Amino acid sequence: MTITEIIYWLELAGVAVFAITGALEASRRQMDMVGFVLIATFTGIGGGTVRDVITGATPVFWIRDTTWLVTCIGAAVITYFTAHLVERRYVALLWLDALGLAMFGVTGAAIGLNLGVSPLVAIVLGMITATFGGMVRDVVCNEIPLILRPEIYITCALVGAGIYVIGTAILDLPRGPIAVIAFFAAFLMRACAIKFKLSFPVYRARPGREY
Amino acid sequence: MTITEIIYWLELAGVAVFAITGALEASRRQMDMVGFVLIATFTGIGGGTVRDVITGATPVFWIRDTTWLVTCIGAAVITYFTAHLVERRYVALLWLDALGLAMFGVTGAAIGLNLGVSPLVAIVLGMITATFGGMVRDVVCNEIPLILRPEIYITCALVGAGIYVIGTAILDLPRGPIAVIAFFAAFLMRACAIKFKLSFPVYRARPGREY
Amino acid sequence: MTITEIIYWLELAGVAVFAITGALEASRRQMDMVGFVLIATFTGIGGGTVRDVITGATPVFWIRDTTWLVTCIGAAVITYFTAHLVERRYVALLWLDALGLAMFGVTGAAIGLNLGVSPLVAIVLGMITATFGGMVRDVVCNEIPLILRPEIYITCALVGAGIYVIGTAILDLPRGPIAVIAFFAAFLMRACAIKFKLSFPVYRARPGREY
Repeated sequence: MTITEIIYWLELAGVAVFAITGALEASRRQMDMVGFVLIATFTGIGGGTVRDVITGATPVFWIRDTTWLVTCIGAAVITYFTAHLVERRYVALLWLDALGLAMFGVTGAAIGLNLGVSPLVAIVLGMITATFGGMVRDVVCNEIPLILRPEIYITCALVGAGIYVIGTAILDLPRGPIAVIAFFAAFLMRACAIKFKLSFPVYRARPGREY
Repeated sequence: MTITEIIYWLELAGVAVFAITGALEASRRQMDMVGFVLIATFTGIGGGTVRDVITGATPVFWIRDTTWLVTCIGAAVITYFTAHLVERRYVALLWLDALGLAMFGVTGAAIGLNLGVSPLVAIVLGMITATFGGMVRDVVCNEIPLILRPEIYITCALVGAGIYVIGTAILDLPRGPIAVIAFFAAFLMRACAIKFKLSFPVYRARPGREY
Repeated sequence: MTITEIIYWLELAGVAVFAITGALEASRRQMDMVGFVLIATFTGIGGGTVRDVITGATPVFWIRDTTWLVTCIGAAVITYFTAHLVERRYVALLWLDALGLAMFGVTGAAIGLNLGVSPLVAIVLGMITATFGGMVRDVVCNEIPLILRPEIYITCALVGAGIYVIGTAILDLPRGPIAVIAFFAAFLMRACAIKFKLSFPVYRARPGREY
């Protein structure tokens, strides 16, 4: 399997997994079938769409190839009929989201490097691909915006993208194994953050200061 | 009148009608003239802008041709001075929005097909063109996000776009009459949804399940 | 110094100043370091990104040149460690935002004219560049959306962009001095709006009308 194929399958798995989190969120908001499909599709392809638009890779990926839309619609329909089998839907959402976050962090950075951008920009593209879909899901569904939660989240995408970019573009290591290592590092970090509720120190003003 | 002209006039009418709904919303929020123009413009050209950006048809349509901006600004100014003549502004907003939804569903799909995308993608482009402007209007003005309302809304855009795409791209019927039929089908469906408060069955969890 | 260099330095200063306002907002929301960098970057490069995407100038400016991201990250880190020195952070944010607004109104319009768009579209591009970053900052941080505040804000960007476009594209005056005049006019107008709480008359419905 070439690196391009690895990236393709990771990306497809990421889209499916994020689409399921969108559909689970729709089930928690008691939407109808159309809402399921819409939120699943936004979440699944949102990050990659922004990445393609700002890098100028238009028409964006899901316009060029219908597979992506079919994947999102399929994930939404299957979730509509099976979500009641899941005991605790929010927990399922959280862990699938972690999986998608780790996948998209790596694929976003890899696609950036293929376009010839600088390492820093490639890491940022990985972060955007990984976090934007979930951000749209949360904003549209009136959840507390991702960015305002104290938990470690975006950093996991940055770590995955960072390991891949430093490993392949700077240290020139083989891309396949590095992609796998970067994925697991990002997922493990997010898993620890969920399990142990890890967070970074927040900014605190000195007393007596005005906001 | 050629099909390109029909699409152009339908699109222009859609922009004007959506711009008026934006200005009516601004009047309900007691904004100043600048707010009227801004919300009217967002609503009028928002959907088409997203369609052009993701398909790579840049610079987007209103940058290439100043007519569109002038239409939105004109609609905002006229509404500013005449909105008080309307007895029930929210009802006017609702019906004009239905008109724009039906127009943009067809034109968005037609523009997609002209770019050579697959039928499924063309339907999705029609839906995006029809719903995005109103979504931005609602988010910026702090209305309940469209997608969370139980009413049948997006489906009407999908039906209009679907009839046009299946009729012209798959059954190869003449495009002019099909565009008109698709428009009326979408508008009638939305009219029934408003009049009889139709909605699809929503997802309900079995009792005893955690969210 | 050529006009291209003036525009470049004005744009860089605008990005830095807007990034600081984003970081100050993050400090008011007690975010962690990652949140600081993220909000600072959104605010700093948001307006220019939208301008580049809709005009088709992709990959967008901060992908082509890493300076912009480094500036935003640097501004966020410096603000993280120095924000406690500022007595009244919201006032600092307000005035820096006014500075950025005036800078971006001019540079956005100038970049639009360089792309050969019509004067009206160039003014709109200036307005988008100047206001979009702050809008994203406010939406993500749950502040009252800009557009709903009664104060004079967007008009200042329109005035700056308008003076530059009318002065250079229509009256054909030298671009350097006009850029400086347009910047000061926009900043002064915003300064008066902050100082004297100026606002335009808002729309008021006649009594007895339904909303």
